[in-house]
Amino acid sequence: MSVAKNLLYEGKAKIIYTTDEPEILLAHYKDDATAFNAQKRGKIVGKGEINCKISQALFQYLEARGIRTHFIDCPAPNQMRVMRVKILPLEVVVRNIAAGSLCQQTGLPLGTLLKQPLVEFYYKNDQLGDPLLTRDRLLLMELATPDELDQLQQQALQINRYLSEFFQSCGITLVDFKLEFGLDTQGTIRLADEISPDTCRLWNSADTDPNNRVMDKDRFRRDLGNVENAYQQVLERIQLRGQESEVRGQGN
Amino acid sequence: MSVAKNLLYEGKAKIIYTTDEPEILLAHYKDDATAFNAQKRGKIVGKGEINCKISQALFQYLEARGIRTHFIDCPAPNQMRVMRVKILPLEVVVRNIAAGSLCQQTGLPLGTLLKQPLVEFYYKNDQLGDPLLTRDRLLLMELATPDELDQLQQQALQINRYLSEFFQSCGITLVDFKLEFGLDTQGTIRLADEISPDTCRLWNSADTDPNNRVMDKDRFRRDLGNVENAYQQVLERIQLRGQESEVRGQGN
Ligand SMILES: Nc1ncnc2c1ncn2[C@@H]1O[C@H](COP(=O)(O)OP(=O)(O)O)[C@@H](O)[C@H]1O
Ligand SMILES: Nc1ncnc2c1ncn2[C@@H]1O[C@H](COP(=O)(O)OP(=O)(O)O)[C@@H](O)[C@H]1O
Ligand SMILES: [Mg+2]
Ligand SMILES: [Mg+2]
Repeated sequence: MSVAKNLLYEGKAKIIYTTDEPEILLAHYKDDATAFNAQKRGKIVGKGEINCKISQALFQYLEARGIRTHFIDCPAPNQMRVMRVKILPLEVVVRNIAAGSLCQQTGLPLGTLLKQPLVEFYYKNDQLGDPLLTRDRLLLMELATPDELDQLQQQALQINRYLSEFFQSCGITLVDFKLEFGLDTQGTIRLADEISPDTCRLWNSADTDPNNRVMDKDRFRRDLGNVENAYQQVLERIQLRGQESEVRGQGN
Repeated sequence: MSVAKNLLYEGKAKIIYTTDEPEILLAHYKDDATAFNAQKRGKIVGKGEINCKISQALFQYLEARGIRTHFIDCPAPNQMRVMRVKILPLEVVVRNIAAGSLCQQTGLPLGTLLKQPLVEFYYKNDQLGDPLLTRDRLLLMELATPDELDQLQQQALQINRYLSEFFQSCGITLVDFKLEFGLDTQGTIRLADEISPDTCRLWNSADTDPNNRVMDKDRFRRDLGNVENAYQQVLERIQLRGQESEVRGQGN
C-alpha cells in the first residue's frame, strides 16, 4: 500500500502527493469549490468524499469498457491512487446540450440539443483563463500532435457514449463534461484527473425546471442552494445503479 | 452616378446608404474610431478620407489579380460605391505574426513569426464581443456552409499573399488583418467592407521599436500618439508605390 510521501501539487480541487512508488500518485479530493477561474471560492461539505467515490465508479465503469484511465484504487474515502501521467495542458470538453460558455459565446439558447456531440479543446492555463482553442492554435502551440489530437477526439466521443448511457440509466442527463488526459510512461494516452459533478453538467432527467434539475457545480456557480444535497443525490443514484446491475449479474 | 438615398445602417466606422440602384450601396467612411468592442471611442481627424483611399487602392489591386470585391468607385474622397452583398456574420482574420488577442489567449510573445499564416474566424456580433469560433461552432451555428468555409479559407490565404507582397513593397510588414465577405445576388462570395489601418496591423519594416513601428489602429488602442500621422504615412507610401509602378508601366 503506497503512502503519501511529498506534496507534489495543490490544485483547486485536489492535493496530489508522491508515494514511495515513483509511478504512483495519491490524490486527496478536497471540499474546496471554486468557479469562474477561482474568482468565486467556497466549500461544499462532503464533496471530497463524494467526488472521489463518483470518480472511482466512473473510472471503473470506463476501464471495464476498454478506456485506459489513471485509476488504481481508493485507500480511503477521499483518496485515490492513480498512475502518474504527464498531463496534456488541455481541457477536453464534450457537449451534448448547449450550456455555459457555449451559450454565452454563440447565443444558442440554454438547453439546445446539439445535432451531434461537440468536442472542444481549451488551453488549461489559469493565468490566461482557460481560453478556447481552435485546432490550428492547438497545433501552433504544440500542445498535442495531430495524431494525439485525433486520438483525444475519438476517445472523448467514445467516453461520451459510455457516460451518457451510464447517467441515463441513473435518470440523469449528461449535458456536458470536461476531461483531462495524460501520457503514461509508455507514451500512451490515459484518461486522468476526475469525473464528478465538479466537471460535468448533470440534469435530473425527470425535472424540466431549469434550476431544480441542476445536480452539479452550477448550483454553486449560480447560488442555487442545496449544493451538498445535489452531489449526494448523484452519488446515491450511481450506487443504486451499481446494486441493481449486481443483482442482474452484470458487474458494473 | 448613384446618389445617397436612405440611410441603411450606421456602423462604427462607416455609414451605409442605399442609392437609386438597388444593388449599389454608398459607404461614407467616418473619422470615428472605436476599440475594445466600442468601449473606447474617439476621432482620428482625416481617417474617413484616408481609409477610403487606402481601401480603394487595395480593392483595385486585388481585383486586378482576380479577387472579387464589392468595390465600384469613389464618387468623393470619403465615399465608396459598392455592390450590395449579404454580409456573412464572420470576421475572417489572417495572421502572419502573433499580436493582439492571439498573444493574450495563447501566451505567444508579441512579434512571434508564425510558421504559416493562421486563418481564424470570429463571430461578427458586437453584443457577444466578437468571440473566436472553432470550425465546429461555425458549422453548428450555420454561419457558413462547409463549402463556403473552404472558399473563405482559400481566398483569405490568397489575399494574404497579395497584400503581404503589396505592403512589403511599401516598406510595411503586414502583421494581421480582418476581412468581411458577403454573398452577391449571384450567390458568389465577394470581399466586402474595408481594408485599412483600422482593420490591419501594419508595422514599419525599417523600425524595430515595438511602439514606433506601429502604423495602425493600435496607436489609438494603446494611446501611442501620432495616430493621424501614421494613417497618413500608410496612404502616402501606397500612393508613392502607385506612381512608381506607373513609371515602370505595371499599372497597379
Ligand atoms: N494521473 C495524474 N498524474 C499527474 N497529474 C495529475 C493526474 N491526474 C490529475 N492530475 C493533475 O492534478 C492537478 C490537481 O487537480 P486539481 O485540484 O483539479 O487542479 P487544478 O486546480 O489545476 O484544476 C491538476 O493539475 C491535474 O491536471
Ligand atoms: N458591400 C456591402 N454590402 C452590405 N453591407 C456591407 C457591405 N460592405 C460592408 N458592409 C457592412 O456595413 C456595415 C458598416 O460598416 P462599419 O461602420 O465598419 O460597421 P460595424 O460597426 O458593424 O463594423 C458593416 O456591418 C459591414 O459589414
Ligand atoms: Mg481541476
Ligand atoms: Mg466594421
